[in-house]
Amino acid sequence: MADTTPTMRSYRAAVKSFEDGTSSPRDFLEDCLSTMEKLEPDIGAFVATNVEGARDAADASSARWKEGAPLSLIDGMPLCIKHIMETHDMPTGQGSDLFTGWEGNRDSAAVAGLREAGGVILAKSVTTEFAAQPARGTRNPWDLSRTPGGSSSGTAASVACGMVPAGLGTQGLGSTIRPASFCGVYAFKPTVGGINRGGSFDTISQSATSTFAATLEETWEVARAITARVGGDSGRPGVSGPLEAPAAKKPRRVAMLQTEGWEQAEEAAKMALADARGVLVDAGIEVIDRESHAGVAAVEAAIEGGVELSGGLNNWEFRWPLNTYARDMDRSKLSQEAQDRLEFAESMTLEDYQGLLRKRQQIRDIYGGLAADADVCVTLSAPGPAPVGHGWTGDAVFAVPASILGNCSFSLPVLEADGLPLGLHVLGYPEKDAECFAAARAISELF
Amino acid sequence: MADTTPTMRSYRAAVKSFEDGTSSPRDFLEDCLSTMEKLEPDIGAFVATNVEGARDAADASSARWKEGAPLSLIDGMPLCIKHIMETHDMPTGQGSDLFTGWEGNRDSAAVAGLREAGGVILAKSVTTEFAAQPARGTRNPWDLSRTPGGSSSGTAASVACGMVPAGLGTQGLGSTIRPASFCGVYAFKPTVGGINRGGSFDTISQSATSTFAATLEETWEVARAITARVGGDSGRPGVSGPLEAPAAKKPRRVAMLQTEGWEQAEEAAKMALADARGVLVDAGIEVIDRESHAGVAAVEAAIEGGVELSGGLNNWEFRWPLNTYARDMDRSKLSQEAQDRLEFAESMTLEDYQGLLRKRQQIRDIYGGLAADADVCVTLSAPGPAPVGHGWTGDAVFAVPASILGNCSFSLPVLEADGLPLGLHVLGYPEKDAECFAAARAISELF
Repeated sequence: MADTTPTMRSYRAAVKSFEDGTSSPRDFLEDCLSTMEKLEPDIGAFVATNVEGARDAADASSARWKEGAPLSLIDGMPLCIKHIMETHDMPTGQGSDLFTGWEGNRDSAAVAGLREAGGVILAKSVTTEFAAQPARGTRNPWDLSRTPGGSSSGTAASVACGMVPAGLGTQGLGSTIRPASFCGVYAFKPTVGGINRGGSFDTISQSATSTFAATLEETWEVARAITARVGGDSGRPGVSGPLEAPAAKKPRRVAMLQTEGWEQAEEAAKMALADARGVLVDAGIEVIDRESHAGVAAVEAAIEGGVELSGGLNNWEFRWPLNTYARDMDRSKLSQEAQDRLEFAESMTLEDYQGLLRKRQQIRDIYGGLAADADVCVTLSAPGPAPVGHGWTGDAVFAVPASILGNCSFSLPVLEADGLPLGLHVLGYPEKDAECFAAARAISELF
Repeated sequence: MADTTPTMRSYRAAVKSFEDGTSSPRDFLEDCLSTMEKLEPDIGAFVATNVEGARDAADASSARWKEGAPLSLIDGMPLCIKHIMETHDMPTGQGSDLFTGWEGNRDSAAVAGLREAGGVILAKSVTTEFAAQPARGTRNPWDLSRTPGGSSSGTAASVACGMVPAGLGTQGLGSTIRPASFCGVYAFKPTVGGINRGGSFDTISQSATSTFAATLEETWEVARAITARVGGDSGRPGVSGPLEAPAAKKPRRVAMLQTEGWEQAEEAAKMALADARGVLVDAGIEVIDRESHAGVAAVEAAIEGGVELSGGLNNWEFRWPLNTYARDMDRSKLSQEAQDRLEFAESMTLEDYQGLLRKRQQIRDIYGGLAADADVCVTLSAPGPAPVGHGWTGDAVFAVPASILGNCSFSLPVLEADGLPLGLHVLGYPEKDAECFAAARAISELF
């Protein structure tokens, strides 16, 4: 077990001290660095850091705050970046032995947006190989014997223990909501295409770049600072709405989902969700579910099988580049898991894939029908707390619905099971990220 | 003027000789290499070649044909690849001084698909900088004093004079239809997302990877050989239909478009199109236009302004990576044109961009309404023959409608003006590439 309870470090909470001159982004960074120095040897969240570059950027930000002219709400915020996204000053190894030390010499779009907003890019954070499997050894700050989840392992773990206030991840299956749940941090997985994925080694059509932070508000403000500058994926509107976190708006009606994960959920997790339901009801929020509402039952039926469907889609969509890696590079540096996925993909045809796309669209259409009846949906972020061990990143099953649906969702670290964090998963509707945030904020404030 | 009329070299036409053993893909490659040796010093179509690798691949293909077991219809076909797409064995310089010699050590998705189909990747072909501007000096085989068009300059020029039977390009504005017209080759710009763009330095939402070939049939068969193996862009169905070129199907009714290019069109080009209209009518095809049909008039009105709209969209969508190139790399190696585009993009907001996206969707919806009334649309591929000079790649205006609409289109080298090639541009509907091909084939056979 770690010596102490992990403590998140909010940048937003410190901004007042920059404005009144009692502190500065450079001071804030030094606190982060102290925490990093103390905890990183145990946690293993980072693959690379650029401490001197971060100090320079923090000094420049400190000068701007002193002049009362910050570039954005997050000017000076230290951040870590998932190791599949290019940064001009650090390698982008994708958690792959094939790409160890690979340098692109440019920033990915999201990182370029962060730097334009004054963000301080401190580190590249551990990912599983190619944001899939296997794990690359980060430990959970709540219990070093446990996984932090994956694939955004390092981002979740480093935010959880205050090495950085926020960072970037992605999710194509369960790579954001699951580690946020296991590490007890806030996370925002936008609508697919919501944050520009240019320069991120991410070929998955249902994947989205996501934000992890010490507060719910910061998940929003980091995302919007990026999209104001570099938008979403080309051709997509991108995360829109106010630059500052939207005000809380209590949902009128919430759909409680079980999802196909219910069978795997631990009793303690089910009880935590039942308690959360009680909190919502006590607050005057109507809760509907598969028993009480045909529309919810239709969604539950539609998302059943989402894990297998996601597997087929994601495998085909990673046929390339795995095919060229296996043929033209050193195949022995691909994990067995990657080689198995390639073999799976090579057994598929374009027509198989097109069938999966149609199936996914049907599920999305059914989910869209629920918008008239429920402001947001709520379920668990994971079937239980982080499992013991570092080889497996845990079950993604509760995170998958938001991936297959392509909608926005948040993990709120407001539940617990067995004395460990457990996330409450709030799901909205595509391109309605601001509305979902407002509901999630209202729900968060009830706990 | 070049010594002789440029002659295209069809691989499809040679396949019978591989089957009966009178020739082989290696023999075919050697013929290509002879032509290349003779003409390339004047044309300047290629940035890099891998002759030994091509010979090895051609030998392997020759063995397969000898055994009666080719991997695909295009097994052994020599191809060139636009210089923005990664190839594991040649650099990918993007026509940019910043990326001269840059090696990614992997194949882009389309190239990986071609190699799996037995394709022989001979060369990387010249592109304008970042597939935009300025030009990089390729000369037109029909008249060395003229541009081959851009941005797929080297692919169009090399196919035109038989250095290769086919190659890959892209189009986000006019980069396929225009050079195909100027060089007198066949080209197929699929529906957006039709060919997987993984590993292509192409961030433009209305851009598509395209095929250029010596015959119309080969434009199809190259595209389908790719998509059968690596599909379209992630999340898109990809170019579908038979692997062999669909049979000709004479359209019942064709819409003749003027487009916003009509004002710039040369008299000789207008006369050529009028003659083509006569050919269609003589063949029993009904031709409707803006004068005779309200639906066509609505489309003409909708696509007016497409050049400016495309400029706004494309500039925003290339804000990244130009922003990191300008800030983190050697800005002096960016052309003035690129720096101007970045400045334009930086003057835009996300909300400006979202407005342009909505405008584009409106145009697409209006165009979709024409499907009930016209099997395909027909217009010029360019306002006239290739202009003299190598600094400017010519006016893209007639190619732009297919870019802004995101639909499939073909350029057929069946017209001429001033003794130089001019393309007939056939436009279909999104995801109806096979149907458009069948109509284009029927039209092509009338000339």
